[in-house]
Amino acid sequence: MTVTDEYLSNNAEYAAQFNGPLPLPPSRNVAVVACMDARLDVYRILGLAEGEAHVIRNAGGVITDDEIRSLAISQRLLGTKEIILIHHTDCGMLTFTDDDFKRGIQEETGLKPAWSAEAFPDLEEDVRQSLKRIEANPFVTKTESLRGFVFDVATGQLNEVKAE
Amino acid sequence: MTVTDEYLSNNAEYAAQFNGPLPLPPSRNVAVVACMDARLDVYRILGLAEGEAHVIRNAGGVITDDEIRSLAISQRLLGTKEIILIHHTDCGMLTFTDDDFKRGIQEETGLKPAWSAEAFPDLEEDVRQSLKRIEANPFVTKTESLRGFVFDVATGQLNEVKAE
Repeated sequence: MTVTDEYLSNNAEYAAQFNGPLPLPPSRNVAVVACMDARLDVYRILGLAEGEAHVIRNAGGVITDDEIRSLAISQRLLGTKEIILIHHTDCGMLTFTDDDFKRGIQEETGLKPAWSAEAFPDLEEDVRQSLKRIEANPFVTKTESLRGFVFDVATGQLNEVKAE
Repeated sequence: MTVTDEYLSNNAEYAAQFNGPLPLPPSRNVAVVACMDARLDVYRILGLAEGEAHVIRNAGGVITDDEIRSLAISQRLLGTKEIILIHHTDCGMLTFTDDDFKRGIQEETGLKPAWSAEAFPDLEEDVRQSLKRIEANPFVTKTESLRGFVFDVATGQLNEVKAE
């Protein structure tokens, strides 16, 4: 029995209480980009109800072409206008460098990834440059509010990162 | 007052009840890849407790280089071994084509994205090819369980997609 099997059994309980379906477009017109970290229950952290906001997540909560793709679809096809970006304290991305990570993969597999691992040494600095990646991108054109935060895994608080 | 401001006020309530911090590595060694759709509260759908599993999300729940990056970091640095992939019924990705989406962007901005939008016409087929993208990738090497599902937004149920 895998953990996946356990989670499927949890899903049967969830479905037994489920009331659906809700409409497809996010009812509050918000898109969140956050780290994949297991401790970030984004719906609880922001008090999101089902159906309110798109939630995009990856290692670090960084902005690459795939987050631009998701944000462009979110804004152009489904009407979101606000973006909330979330990094967090004690992040795995602070614990390594791209060079070492890619060297480790190459030593195991004989191949070096052509992509960046997107590790960063400073949380607030990376929130700022991630916001700038969104601002500078020509395909995310419908943004009315764009703000970045660091979630504190010790206190549960979102602390805003202001432009320098 | 933006919706972001409202969510920050929700966060203050969340932090007031918060017990942390939990450890960084996912305690159940699972990584979930799911669509960004607002109706998918992944923690509730699977019964995830905080700290148990990485959650990676994007438009469609598709597999591009950025999901491979996140999965490689998840497995190599933080010890996950199971992958759960989730698409869902009534998905926005079923409603357009890459060509039309990119043409719309070009008509507005004068620029055509170099990336694919990753729209798909068939949910189960795209779950299967997404699982194959993971299996075929040389950088995701620690997988012990890999299974794909379609979440039904009308019933709350996860329905497994079997290999053909």
